[in-house]
Amino acid sequence: MNARITKLVSRFPWATSPLLIGAPMRVLSGPHLAVAISAAGGLGFIGPGAKTDDLKPDLETAKELVRNADSLRSASLLPVGVGFQLWNDTLETAAELIKQYRPCAVWLYAPKDDAEFETWSAKIRKASDGTSIWIQVGTLGEVKRLLDQSQHPDVIVVQGAEAGGHGRAEDGLGAFTLVPEVVELLHERGVDIPVVAAGGIVDGRGAAASLCLGADGVAMGTRFLASSEARIGKGYQDEIVRASDGGLNTTRTLLYNHLRGTFGWPKEYAPRTIINQSHHDQKAGTPFETLKERHDEAVKAGRGWGPDGRTATYASASIGLIKDVLPAKEIVKQTHKQMRSLLADLRQPLASKL
Amino acid sequence: MNARITKLVSRFPWATSPLLIGAPMRVLSGPHLAVAISAAGGLGFIGPGAKTDDLKPDLETAKELVRNADSLRSASLLPVGVGFQLWNDTLETAAELIKQYRPCAVWLYAPKDDAEFETWSAKIRKASDGTSIWIQVGTLGEVKRLLDQSQHPDVIVVQGAEAGGHGRAEDGLGAFTLVPEVVELLHERGVDIPVVAAGGIVDGRGAAASLCLGADGVAMGTRFLASSEARIGKGYQDEIVRASDGGLNTTRTLLYNHLRGTFGWPKEYAPRTIINQSHHDQKAGTPFETLKERHDEAVKAGRGWGPDGRTATYASASIGLIKDVLPAKEIVKQTHKQMRSLLADLRQPLASKL
Repeated sequence: MNARITKLVSRFPWATSPLLIGAPMRVLSGPHLAVAISAAGGLGFIGPGAKTDDLKPDLETAKELVRNADSLRSASLLPVGVGFQLWNDTLETAAELIKQYRPCAVWLYAPKDDAEFETWSAKIRKASDGTSIWIQVGTLGEVKRLLDQSQHPDVIVVQGAEAGGHGRAEDGLGAFTLVPEVVELLHERGVDIPVVAAGGIVDGRGAAASLCLGADGVAMGTRFLASSEARIGKGYQDEIVRASDGGLNTTRTLLYNHLRGTFGWPKEYAPRTIINQSHHDQKAGTPFETLKERHDEAVKAGRGWGPDGRTATYASASIGLIKDVLPAKEIVKQTHKQMRSLLADLRQPLASKL
Repeated sequence: MNARITKLVSRFPWATSPLLIGAPMRVLSGPHLAVAISAAGGLGFIGPGAKTDDLKPDLETAKELVRNADSLRSASLLPVGVGFQLWNDTLETAAELIKQYRPCAVWLYAPKDDAEFETWSAKIRKASDGTSIWIQVGTLGEVKRLLDQSQHPDVIVVQGAEAGGHGRAEDGLGAFTLVPEVVELLHERGVDIPVVAAGGIVDGRGAAASLCLGADGVAMGTRFLASSEARIGKGYQDEIVRASDGGLNTTRTLLYNHLRGTFGWPKEYAPRTIINQSHHDQKAGTPFETLKERHDEAVKAGRGWGPDGRTATYASASIGLIKDVLPAKEIVKQTHKQMRSLLADLRQPLASKL
């Protein structure tokens, strides 16, 4: 366990153990956020752009920011990762950018079919052989299929059902069950691939719990939406801080994709969002055309977000645990600190009475 | 944290820290299981009977078993707990039995409305003032309402959505999010009530993770279905050991309640079960009457359980992590041991590199 945690983090020489990762949230995780996370001793990922081409200016900015960061400057690869949504990113463009900028890691996600993981992995390894390949899954079946492929990923990201944004629509499980299940499957198959837990982790408690469940590193997404560096609208960010009780106030639904004109996600996925007026109106039977009109009006008028808002507010089920906007550096430091003190504290009652 | 864990376990003088609890599974958690768990240094609960009256012989047996258990004999109250499903248990009968047998704890669950918690608590405190009152919740809203009542419970059991059997039908969250949310709410309100985590915990990993998330004790249900002492049919127990991948192979549905002729559960609840032929046939459009005929035939012919079976096989989403039937004592000891070694092991990478 120990050795596994150390092994994963040691691939990223600037990082503090255990590896704490900023997830590649589409558009929201820009270069400023990613570099700030890495500079604080974590590993930040830049999220997919609206188009794959959009990644180029982001990588250029990241390169520039790294040049000014003492702890990162000497890294042999670009000390941030990049995420791709395979179903709507362009492999050719991605491979060119990876070749040019050599990010230390890529995080692959949401293929139209699992075979795309192989195509992408092969091309990326050719473009930059030092770049480690992370593949995100939300079910045990996906891991089984990955292990049947000719090349294994370098890291498997196990995303629990608490995750914000797009996750498994129906067959996903909480990290609580899914992480140990994946770890056991890998162990049974004799396969040594590090596991990163994701989904609903927003602080040192969830991070420490993930390590107990068998993860070797921990990724946070939504927590970084409430960071100074997130590329996010103020109304959206305010909601992340305001909202609580994710069981009551978040849900998985395709409605907000459709309201924003996004179609084409593989059918296995649906996003978790904070519930607002569009969802309530839909439940009350309002037809889609009317919902769409109201949505577009609200967005135009700057009233997209909030409990009376109408647009997508993708977020984790753990929103109730996020109460402030902080610099990414503080989030990384606090999470590491809380993890450490929790695990130190918890040894005691176990040791004393047995 | 430390102090809180110690405080909870110290109420049960025979128990090892942190408190490990056998959940009161209806009918399945009998006196042999409950006493074996307590005798191993945990706290076993007897589950509700088919009728409240059925509890009497169970309590009589428990009393007898305790008399023969060295570590339990001197306890001032009966060193096992008792669970009640408020919507179909009879308070008068329950109160009489509690007065007569004085179990150390009662676990209250599934009222028709939340006010029943107050009625039951008041009557139970009168019947046996040493008996500690545990109330199970699956949402933050329930906790808020509990805190508005005149009397607080002695323990709040927070059941995550991974749980087997009956849990919240739609608004439940995984333990990963729900446990820290409840702990924070209690803290914000300045209320000092211990929190026990439940739902999907089957070993030392889930137990240690629960402590990281802020729980003061840990309850396991499904794991004890695969114990020598469980009051369970062989076909059912075999399924618990055989089944895996809870995301794919378990679901929440009312179908199996209805096939068994059980109606009347409060609408907020639905049970998690291992999927079998009845579920598949229902999805394929088979009418209920036909499902019911097939169900009754299969049960009569001793083919109720198994992938081709047709009857209720309630179980946690974590079934994939349960691989053997063990004496309850072994389960308690192994879980404590794994928890301890995990937490000891995990301190290292945190301490070393920061």
